[in-house]
Amino acid sequence: MIREHVGLEGGRAYDIVIGEGLLEQVGGMLGELGVSEASRHLVITDANVQAAGYLEKVIASMAAAGYVAEVYVIPPGESSKSLPLAGEALAFAYQCGLDRRSAVLALGGGVVGDFAGFVAATYMRGVAFVQLPTSLLAHDSAVGGKVAVNLPQAKNIIGAFHQPLCVVYDTTALQTLSLREMRSGVSEAIKHGAIRDRDLFFWIEQHQEGLLANDSSLMSELLARSCRIKAQVVAEDETEQGVRAILNFGHTLGHAVEVLAGTYTHGEAVAIGMVAAADLSVRLGLCAAEEAVLVERAMVACGLPTLIPNELDEAELIESMRKDKKAAGGTLTFVLLREIGRVEIVEDVPESAVRDVIRARREG
Amino acid sequence: MIREHVGLEGGRAYDIVIGEGLLEQVGGMLGELGVSEASRHLVITDANVQAAGYLEKVIASMAAAGYVAEVYVIPPGESSKSLPLAGEALAFAYQCGLDRRSAVLALGGGVVGDFAGFVAATYMRGVAFVQLPTSLLAHDSAVGGKVAVNLPQAKNIIGAFHQPLCVVYDTTALQTLSLREMRSGVSEAIKHGAIRDRDLFFWIEQHQEGLLANDSSLMSELLARSCRIKAQVVAEDETEQGVRAILNFGHTLGHAVEVLAGTYTHGEAVAIGMVAAADLSVRLGLCAAEEAVLVERAMVACGLPTLIPNELDEAELIESMRKDKKAAGGTLTFVLLREIGRVEIVEDVPESAVRDVIRARREG
Ligand SMILES: NC(=O)c1ccc[n+]([C@@H]2O[C@H](COP(=O)([O-])OP(=O)(O)OC[C@H]3O[C@@H](n4cnc5c(N)ncnc54)[C@H](O)[C@@H]3O)[C@@H](O)[C@H]2O)c1
Ligand SMILES: NC(=O)c1ccc[n+]([C@@H]2O[C@H](COP(=O)([O-])OP(=O)(O)OC[C@H]3O[C@@H](n4cnc5c(N)ncnc54)[C@H](O)[C@@H]3O)[C@@H](O)[C@H]2O)c1
Ligand SMILES: [Zn+2]
Ligand SMILES: [Zn+2]
Repeated sequence: MIREHVGLEGGRAYDIVIGEGLLEQVGGMLGELGVSEASRHLVITDANVQAAGYLEKVIASMAAAGYVAEVYVIPPGESSKSLPLAGEALAFAYQCGLDRRSAVLALGGGVVGDFAGFVAATYMRGVAFVQLPTSLLAHDSAVGGKVAVNLPQAKNIIGAFHQPLCVVYDTTALQTLSLREMRSGVSEAIKHGAIRDRDLFFWIEQHQEGLLANDSSLMSELLARSCRIKAQVVAEDETEQGVRAILNFGHTLGHAVEVLAGTYTHGEAVAIGMVAAADLSVRLGLCAAEEAVLVERAMVACGLPTLIPNELDEAELIESMRKDKKAAGGTLTFVLLREIGRVEIVEDVPESAVRDVIRARREG
Repeated sequence: MIREHVGLEGGRAYDIVIGEGLLEQVGGMLGELGVSEASRHLVITDANVQAAGYLEKVIASMAAAGYVAEVYVIPPGESSKSLPLAGEALAFAYQCGLDRRSAVLALGGGVVGDFAGFVAATYMRGVAFVQLPTSLLAHDSAVGGKVAVNLPQAKNIIGAFHQPLCVVYDTTALQTLSLREMRSGVSEAIKHGAIRDRDLFFWIEQHQEGLLANDSSLMSELLARSCRIKAQVVAEDETEQGVRAILNFGHTLGHAVEVLAGTYTHGEAVAIGMVAAADLSVRLGLCAAEEAVLVERAMVACGLPTLIPNELDEAELIESMRKDKKAAGGTLTFVLLREIGRVEIVEDVPESAVRDVIRARREG
């Protein structure tokens, strides 16, 4: 079992616990965290995760520890991150008699985590929240307290900062994850390397085969290293007043591609976005051309897409990026590469440069 | 112009500014608060407040100071405090191009304040928020950062703590408020007296005529004294871990009556709730019978209701109170009177005593 720590102020610090078979121990862990047995709690999951048998394990473990768990299952996929569905979950929580001392547990990937976190953040003005990530990508989404649902036209516009009490990462859950979703998760780990840890970046490329085959010791190392970077950045700037925005490397274009195309996983869209951001960095003279080549090479090695689909309209992409959460006053804001392992936030990137990149990086 | 201060930690302290003609000065005040002119801002109001001409003043003042204001008008009344309508306002904010440096301004009573505050708390995970209260009751709701929308069956279940940058209270706006709404606002001021300031309690009863006639110097004194108490309690316990719950005096039964009857103003329902809570306090041996008599006398003097409507089912009232946000584990939690000016939070009040009070305090 590995423990990483997210060192936040104001009683909001917490641990990320990574290991095999942890879902069977959730009940006991809730006890250690001081979660009350007198209140009812809510486990939110999606239908795939339920079908894979993880929900049963959590419920059984909670029951053994004396906890009453209500269950709310959402349809798998990004479209569940909606305000109407969150409203239904909130009404369900109330009907079940959840109170201020109840906890909401998110059992699933980033979609479940973001959704359940929004429910936890807003139910009775905020109740305890526990992350039980089951996808590889969720090593990123489960850490840091960003929770949100989407507007149909833009991701994560409605949300909050609401830190979990704990992140319990049972690595055995990854065994049922599809290769495509494994790759999607690797994409965010590559991002963590690209922004802060050059060694990690190349280590991932080098070990991609073992990682995608879910080699358990490689996977533990990946999760620990990647979560550590995420935890550090979050601890430096919990509510994204500044440096935390570097975690959005690849996300300016990534979010636009993800929403407008609707056919990419989050990690795939971010991969396209990272390669484009690296290209933009070169064009703006911020980084050597070889570095961008290495970014693209890593994505290709991991089986991630790197080109912008032709059917996405350039003007729509630009408009979507101008309304990105990082931007203010309608400017184009990007996280740009100085070298692999070091990035910089640039507001007011010239639109012409962005258009050049979009044209240059089409599927062709 | 009177200034009260809400002394919160973590950069969340702010002022309550009370005076005549302040809506004409909103633009300049936003400048002093550091609100950016490069971003667009959103004024949320209701149709009554708009019709009374206050929206125009705010927009003109903002325009004169170089601010672009978008406007979102909600239907008047409690039913606007809903998640679907908040979703529409959030989508509107995004369509208008609001960004992370935008501010949401709440121009109206407590409904607008709670609703707009929820929009501000969740838009892009939280943007700046300014309260421009126009009802008397909003001297309470605009201070303290509690924001929320309702579930159909229960008030304020979906919300957040999101403090404003400033509360700008233009007392001239009260001139168009109906007598019934004035009384509703007086009810929360009586509450502030009852929980922390015996002098204020009797001062209100003594000056009720002038207050309800909107005598301007009496009104300024009322607002300043009542806001000061609210500000103090909030500063002691921003997120209601303990003492802040005393502000809910009268609200356990009050919320149940308000939701189940649907015909009372918030202040009226709370008046009924305060009288019932005082009665309960006497029955539980916490307070002298004369004190409860004085609570009822003050309500009557101010033209507020004191009896529970016959058509409300006892079992439904109890069930609604058991699910109150203050309660945990389905117990009945009340703020009870020790004497006027001093209260105490009591968890686990026996149901039989509550039922006795309900039976004793029926319209008859
Ligand atoms: N909050 C943050 O900081 C943050 C960071 C990164 C991404 N995100 C968000 O995370 C989301 C993407 O997360 P994701 O990729 O985990 O998506 P996801 O939750 O949709 O999971 C991907 C798919 O894998 C399935 N799945 C999950 N775990 C499984 C398992 N163990 N076995 C079998 N199937 C499983 C899911 O049902 C789903 O179909 C996006 O909405 C993104 O915006 C949030
Ligand atoms: N957040 C908090 O801490 C807190 C505290 C107390 C009450 N509240 C909430 O506040 C709400 C009640 O507030 P309220 O009583 O102000 O209700 P309200 O906002 O509905 O206003 C009452 C009525 O007066 C009208 N009005 C407002 N200002 C006016 C003006 N200047 N001239 C003419 N008409 C005007 C409104 O359109 C409405 O019809 C409830 O939802 C309650 O739950 C919140
Ligand atoms: Zn991401
Ligand atoms: Zn109230």
